[in-house]
Amino acid sequence: MKSDSHFTLTLKVRDYECDLQGIVNNSVYQQYMEHTRHEFILSLGLDFAQLHNQGTDLVVARLEMAFKTPLTSGDEAFCTLNVQKQGLKYIFEQEVYRKKDMKLAIKATVTAVAVIHGKLGISEPVDEKLKAFIGA
Amino acid sequence: MKSDSHFTLTLKVRDYECDLQGIVNNSVYQQYMEHTRHEFILSLGLDFAQLHNQGTDLVVARLEMAFKTPLTSGDEAFCTLNVQKQGLKYIFEQEVYRKKDMKLAIKATVTAVAVIHGKLGISEPVDEKLKAFIGA
Amino acid sequence: MKSDSHFTLTLKVRDYECDLQGIVNNSVYQQYMEHTRHEFILSLGLDFAQLHNQGTDLVVARLEMAFKTPLTSGDEAFCTLNVQKQGLKYIFEQEVYRKKDMKLAIKATVTAVAVIHGKLGISEPVDEKLKAFIGA
Amino acid sequence: MKSDSHFTLTLKVRDYECDLQGIVNNSVYQQYMEHTRHEFILSLGLDFAQLHNQGTDLVVARLEMAFKTPLTSGDEAFCTLNVQKQGLKYIFEQEVYRKKDMKLAIKATVTAVAVIHGKLGISEPVDEKLKAFIGA
Repeated sequence: MKSDSHFTLTLKVRDYECDLQGIVNNSVYQQYMEHTRHEFILSLGLDFAQLHNQGTDLVVARLEMAFKTPLTSGDEAFCTLNVQKQGLKYIFEQEVYRKKDMKLAIKATVTAVAVIHGKLGISEPVDEKLKAFIGA
Repeated sequence: MKSDSHFTLTLKVRDYECDLQGIVNNSVYQQYMEHTRHEFILSLGLDFAQLHNQGTDLVVARLEMAFKTPLTSGDEAFCTLNVQKQGLKYIFEQEVYRKKDMKLAIKATVTAVAVIHGKLGISEPVDEKLKAFIGA
Repeated sequence: MKSDSHFTLTLKVRDYECDLQGIVNNSVYQQYMEHTRHEFILSLGLDFAQLHNQGTDLVVARLEMAFKTPLTSGDEAFCTLNVQKQGLKYIFEQEVYRKKDMKLAIKATVTAVAVIHGKLGISEPVDEKLKAFIGA
Repeated sequence: MKSDSHFTLTLKVRDYECDLQGIVNNSVYQQYMEHTRHEFILSLGLDFAQLHNQGTDLVVARLEMAFKTPLTSGDEAFCTLNVQKQGLKYIFEQEVYRKKDMKLAIKATVTAVAVIHGKLGISEPVDEKLKAFIGA
């Protein structure tokens, strides 16, 4: 696991997240990664639901995922995140590691943008908090 | 299957809905039944999302489910619904049948109420359409 | 919250669990309650996935839920559980409380049975551990 | 929509698939695309669950998705799929279109491989059916 992650969340696989192959369904990793991003921005004082109610939606524009080692019932995982800014985009490098042996389960790049009252733009509160965080 | 159902929706099991036991996860039947109710009210001209945007939320207050025969990968199902009114409550009798042999998968009673701008009440458009439907 | 709960799990709402009404979707509470039961039996040394692989499936036969206070983005919840045995049935009394004010969100009774190689029966390991727990 | 799609599935958004932003949650598109792939291989006589039970797991190794136009409550969608073979890999080009105006919702490339009794390999039945299909 990278020692320089900006944020790490620990999750435990829930049995209903496993599919008939007995492993965590692919779509669930997107849920894990979304939850990790939302907990990360919350740690900066940015509340995803509140932003939505104020007309600012953080949305995913692009996603690349490599599936390495499947998680299964009983597994715990570390979900890590690093973020950088490229113009209007926030690029999240996200990884999921199986806790018991630190094997890489998922490696992903998620590109998010802000949509303000329906238009692509820059959300000042989001931008300030993220720039302060990254710049630090 | 009851011949006098008010509404029937046909669904096909999706593999990601099956859990590690190889059968449709219990929570998914609640999703099937919700989707059936929403499609039913839509057939009456009532749009669940639009109602929410206008301040009227149809919410489930009580649920009773009996799990009879599990559905699995490849199964198709008939989701049936009957509705009656009791004071402020709409009582939905819902059943799910496995199409291939008409075995009963789920038998449920779902009690829904209307919450209008946060308070329990009667939504006139909902009430009129449902009374007209039931009374007919 | 009952002071005599057999088991309590703390969960945090994940934003993807909320639906277009901005509250946790009804079906998600079934997932919370399943996860609580599985973590409970794991605390007794019973592994749901392993039991399945050995031919013993713990399945829900009946479910009754009352929806009291909806959970929403940012909420944390206590999921409590009590269990008793009635013949072949294990009756779980489950409640979900919103952490911030201890309001009751969900009150449920879940009846589970053991299906062994496809037939309703008594799983000795499950029965021994649960009887030892309840009897204690 | 490409006129040369190998396979098309029509789906209707279910309200529980929408999140607190009022649009279909990102992870749900992965479910739509998985269901489309499984229905596609079923149309070739390949049953995903049966293959699993015989020791052959088709798994996703890589995924790239671009999120273009969000789907919302009431929307219907066409999920299209094209497939080609590259060594051990099956490359699926998948798109999701909003039915009402044929706007592109999702554009994705999904790389799948076969894992046979735990080892990366070639499943003869899968390979034959897919080669026959592509070669045609």
